[in-house]
Amino acid sequence: MPESPPLALQPPSAELSAKIANTIRFLSADGVQKANSGHPGLPMGSAEIATVLMTRFLRIDPKDDKWLNRDRFVLSAGHASMLLYSMLYLQGFLTLEDLKNFRQLDSRTPGHPEHGDTPGVEATTGPLGAGFAMAAGMALAERMLAEAYNTPKFDIVDHYTYVLMGDGCHMEGVTNEAASLAGHLKLGRLIAIYDDNGISIEGNTDLAFTENVGMRYEALGWQVQDIDGHDCEAIARAIENAQAETSRPSLIVAHTTIGKGAPHKQGTHGVHGEPLGAEELAAAKAGMGWPAEDFHVPQDVLDYFDVRRGEWMAIRNEWNDLFAAYEKKHRSTARELLRVASGELPKQWKKACPEYAPGKAIATRVSGGEIMNKLGGVIPELAGGSADLAPSTKTEIKTGQYPDFVAPGAFLGRNIHFGVREHAMGWMTDGMALHGGFIPFCATFMVFHDYMRPSVRLAALMRLRSIFVYTHDSIYVGEDGPTHEPIEHLASLRAIPRVQVWRPCDANEAIYAWQSAIERKDGPTCLAMTRQNLMTLDREKYAPARDALKGMYVIDPEGEKTAEILIVATGSEVHLALAVADALRGQGRGVRVVSAPCLEAFKLQAEGYRKKVFPKRLKKRLVIEAGVEQGWEGTLGESGLFVGMDDFGYSGPAAKVAGKCGFAVPAILEKIAQAAW
Amino acid sequence: MPESPPLALQPPSAELSAKIANTIRFLSADGVQKANSGHPGLPMGSAEIATVLMTRFLRIDPKDDKWLNRDRFVLSAGHASMLLYSMLYLQGFLTLEDLKNFRQLDSRTPGHPEHGDTPGVEATTGPLGAGFAMAAGMALAERMLAEAYNTPKFDIVDHYTYVLMGDGCHMEGVTNEAASLAGHLKLGRLIAIYDDNGISIEGNTDLAFTENVGMRYEALGWQVQDIDGHDCEAIARAIENAQAETSRPSLIVAHTTIGKGAPHKQGTHGVHGEPLGAEELAAAKAGMGWPAEDFHVPQDVLDYFDVRRGEWMAIRNEWNDLFAAYEKKHRSTARELLRVASGELPKQWKKACPEYAPGKAIATRVSGGEIMNKLGGVIPELAGGSADLAPSTKTEIKTGQYPDFVAPGAFLGRNIHFGVREHAMGWMTDGMALHGGFIPFCATFMVFHDYMRPSVRLAALMRLRSIFVYTHDSIYVGEDGPTHEPIEHLASLRAIPRVQVWRPCDANEAIYAWQSAIERKDGPTCLAMTRQNLMTLDREKYAPARDALKGMYVIDPEGEKTAEILIVATGSEVHLALAVADALRGQGRGVRVVSAPCLEAFKLQAEGYRKKVFPKRLKKRLVIEAGVEQGWEGTLGESGLFVGMDDFGYSGPAAKVAGKCGFAVPAILEKIAQAAW
Repeated sequence: MPESPPLALQPPSAELSAKIANTIRFLSADGVQKANSGHPGLPMGSAEIATVLMTRFLRIDPKDDKWLNRDRFVLSAGHASMLLYSMLYLQGFLTLEDLKNFRQLDSRTPGHPEHGDTPGVEATTGPLGAGFAMAAGMALAERMLAEAYNTPKFDIVDHYTYVLMGDGCHMEGVTNEAASLAGHLKLGRLIAIYDDNGISIEGNTDLAFTENVGMRYEALGWQVQDIDGHDCEAIARAIENAQAETSRPSLIVAHTTIGKGAPHKQGTHGVHGEPLGAEELAAAKAGMGWPAEDFHVPQDVLDYFDVRRGEWMAIRNEWNDLFAAYEKKHRSTARELLRVASGELPKQWKKACPEYAPGKAIATRVSGGEIMNKLGGVIPELAGGSADLAPSTKTEIKTGQYPDFVAPGAFLGRNIHFGVREHAMGWMTDGMALHGGFIPFCATFMVFHDYMRPSVRLAALMRLRSIFVYTHDSIYVGEDGPTHEPIEHLASLRAIPRVQVWRPCDANEAIYAWQSAIERKDGPTCLAMTRQNLMTLDREKYAPARDALKGMYVIDPEGEKTAEILIVATGSEVHLALAVADALRGQGRGVRVVSAPCLEAFKLQAEGYRKKVFPKRLKKRLVIEAGVEQGWEGTLGESGLFVGMDDFGYSGPAAKVAGKCGFAVPAILEKIAQAAW
Repeated sequence: MPESPPLALQPPSAELSAKIANTIRFLSADGVQKANSGHPGLPMGSAEIATVLMTRFLRIDPKDDKWLNRDRFVLSAGHASMLLYSMLYLQGFLTLEDLKNFRQLDSRTPGHPEHGDTPGVEATTGPLGAGFAMAAGMALAERMLAEAYNTPKFDIVDHYTYVLMGDGCHMEGVTNEAASLAGHLKLGRLIAIYDDNGISIEGNTDLAFTENVGMRYEALGWQVQDIDGHDCEAIARAIENAQAETSRPSLIVAHTTIGKGAPHKQGTHGVHGEPLGAEELAAAKAGMGWPAEDFHVPQDVLDYFDVRRGEWMAIRNEWNDLFAAYEKKHRSTARELLRVASGELPKQWKKACPEYAPGKAIATRVSGGEIMNKLGGVIPELAGGSADLAPSTKTEIKTGQYPDFVAPGAFLGRNIHFGVREHAMGWMTDGMALHGGFIPFCATFMVFHDYMRPSVRLAALMRLRSIFVYTHDSIYVGEDGPTHEPIEHLASLRAIPRVQVWRPCDANEAIYAWQSAIERKDGPTCLAMTRQNLMTLDREKYAPARDALKGMYVIDPEGEKTAEILIVATGSEVHLALAVADALRGQGRGVRVVSAPCLEAFKLQAEGYRKKVFPKRLKKRLVIEAGVEQGWEGTLGESGLFVGMDDFGYSGPAAKVAGKCGFAVPAILEKIAQAAW
């Protein structure tokens, strides 16, 4: 692919570069010192790397941190946040006042970079490895968008994704997952700079980390370079080489001195995670000929970035011109690109959804896959993949328009083979959401949510539109046994703030679960889907499936007038609830059945509606869910009964496992009888 | 270290080896076929590997699967469980009837290997990478025990740890974490055999996995060999080479054909995870000259294993003799080894615990570290480490007896630098518990539990005595902000069956939390410890700290007679509860305060006690915990008030963050006033 040349930029003189580096170095150290909390070591050691990136490579719009084609820079070593804040100050996104408020409540400079709280912060980082893996997702999104929307003369999307990482990132397994996949996919525009300072919290990294990182990355299909991380020219050459290598991602191993400049503490773990102290900081400044005043920024550095911001604006304007010409030539494509980048959905998208006729038994993983495909047909930005379980999770979008799957170096496709790498899959999904242009999904068995939990948590914290499809959602997995049977997972997912967890009871509820996931813009959605077949309910007899959007609803109007027992169930257990209700009615009891596909959606309903579904007078409440009780106590009240799991599951045919666990009409009737309801 | 030579074993003839391999191959295929569920591909492809391991290397006691010095064999690719069951049948631990009951409810042959359900199964596996990382923990435990208890003439502990893994294991990041640490530590007795069959669920592995695995392992400090995995002599030579390499762990890349022998399906993903089908299975048997009957075992194979079991018994007897001589010479050391291997605690161990005088403020991470050190002084089997956070988690045991830390190739020590590898740390902790001889602990910040969750889940499933120390347990982390502040973690930990979660309110409750963790034999314990200082309560004024063992207890006897409001709190929030109670009493209200360090321990108390703590008449219940409400609704009842977190935390000084989140006496009094209590 031809590349548009960057606007010619004169690199700053060696002297000015050193000054900029020291500005970053001491702004960072001052920020940590003033907060009396934070990590000065990595910022001081990586100041030259940040300088070279900003002065010679990074293409951004200093007035628009949302520009689609900006280079992405992710600080994977999130604890070094003052480095990023110092950079964002020089770029123009933050003020000196912001830096002085580092780590203060409600400031724009929190302890770790928080996407959304601070302009220019591409991703929330801190949990190690996360930033690297999200950057891999951004780099993948960039190529997928480029191949879908660029035309021979118009490289509308052609930016780089840079990531700065430390030793800790390399030790985290998820980094290897993401690096392995990035190498496989040939993400040539992903450039990782490894601040190799030889120090971690417990001491020298060789206490626990003596592997040959460079050799490992070569084995993973990366270009690897070794440089002096304090030599600006070496850094620049390495980044140029990395850009020139278009078919492999690049790792630049930059040997640095942690806390560079601190005369007594540099090169030790004493400088990693605590302020230098007034004396050491003063000595560092004196030793490097730096003025003693706090938060000092030399005038020529300020002047330089004034000019640099002009260059950045010119870069942006040049792109605007390119886009205008592109829009002229490819009107509908350009409009679609703008739409997908904006996060707005196409008109009429909901009409694509199928409707399921009653009476057919179909697993929600299967109906979910069908729904996803219908939606995928009209929502081109819906893209994702599975952790080597697509034949089981049923999450392939087949459009027939072009190759279904993204392949190494060939990114036209909607599906990604993530391999058995749940954790990297989760982060890369988040990275795609952060990049923009996609509504990303990923899929695995629900029990393996545990492998990727940090990525779901941060999707929630960042309010990303990531969709996590979790199939095989209960002990009805059967033969695979307890290691594959989620028990506590619905509860543990619901415990994460801002997550919505959907567990549809049939194919038609699955439609609304998917619609909600697609529509939701302020947080991630988890879809819990069954392995086993579920009867599609007759919505003439039962309440309309679209009531599912309210989170909980009375599904079975029969016996409403005389209702004295209220049964609540989710997903596959709704069918059991309906059968129990029928049996109880046979005994002359009045029963209400509530389907509860999404507890979080229900909480958002008006109080009046919620009280209508759960009137105080209905105190005999039975909850059936093939998971732990935790989270249901409030619904149950003081006299409720819970039918669920209080221990791990078993291996055996699903029906037998379910029977052993008490999911059967007679056992439940017996339980009700014992309670003397 | 000198090695005791194995008893001379005559390898079976090439013809007999092939027969044994086919026995394993077709027992596995028959088992899957009969269950109509399971994974025949890997067992059929790895039959020669299993044969060579069993006939030439594995040193076990076929009558005692608990023998301390047995070789450990872990099937990390747990889905290939029929391979392991076929092996255990030939070893004598299972019957043919067991194999015929594969994947049936309550059988000894569940879908994935379940430690505890099946004799000879060293670890529950299925979640990929887990077995490999647990094996690394076993290999570490072996060396740590060996260096602590062996003497120049007595190699009491000197076994190997073998692990069989597939492509999926290699893709999981945790495998890289464990491999990196195993290479660093020079675990020369860890021998991993990689069944490299080129097939995963979605198709050929090259869809997602094209890295150079061998080169990666070399970079991690491993010996790497490449062999034909169907050539018994090549397998044997490779294992010999691996044993000869004493300072590096070994990876044997064994190229195999998945489903080897199935004429139409071998080498394809169609044979990975479903039965061959009657026709294909019959054709496979015919093609390999194998009798058509199900579960056929040739007489000469049976005869061979009769002899082999005799050899195994001789190996065990030889060790028994060695141990008898060792016991004679090193009486107390031998007794201690037997004791630590049995899991029994030393007498009087509880006396080692300190008692904390009231009035001093000390974080529970600090008091916890002190308690751990006192206990470590009398419980030599207490060993573990942190994921590069020991200076913060305060979890170093310093005895002064020998080097504090295990180092590469030098395993005398109590502490392990796990590096920033939470997930491998959790699994290796489990592996140490499985191996025996240790009560292992590991530590990190509570929020990073998310990185290692699968290892905690399986510790619970296996009922292991693993201890997980989680410090920095709430928003009181402060400046590090929401990525480092656990919100949903207490709930998500409590949701896992069989886990006990302790959150002590002061140094003296921390003693009993630790005692409970040490004493508990049927499941893992998580210890939630504060970053911030907590006042040591005056137990003259308040109830004795040992009441903590009941899980929940009335801590403040003042105002008991007139109590109309009941406040429950855990950990640091107990102090806030006591302050709120004092303020309410100032308003003339009677208040009961309950400290709730362990909800699970409370559930185990007699109903009478539970009702006494929470009498029905006390309906005005206030729960204070710096976490989500989930799990507390039952305690709250219909009219309770919850003071906790319903969203993520903030970055700022801890007191300010706590104030913003409502953890302050005035805010809580206001809430109570609003409720018109």
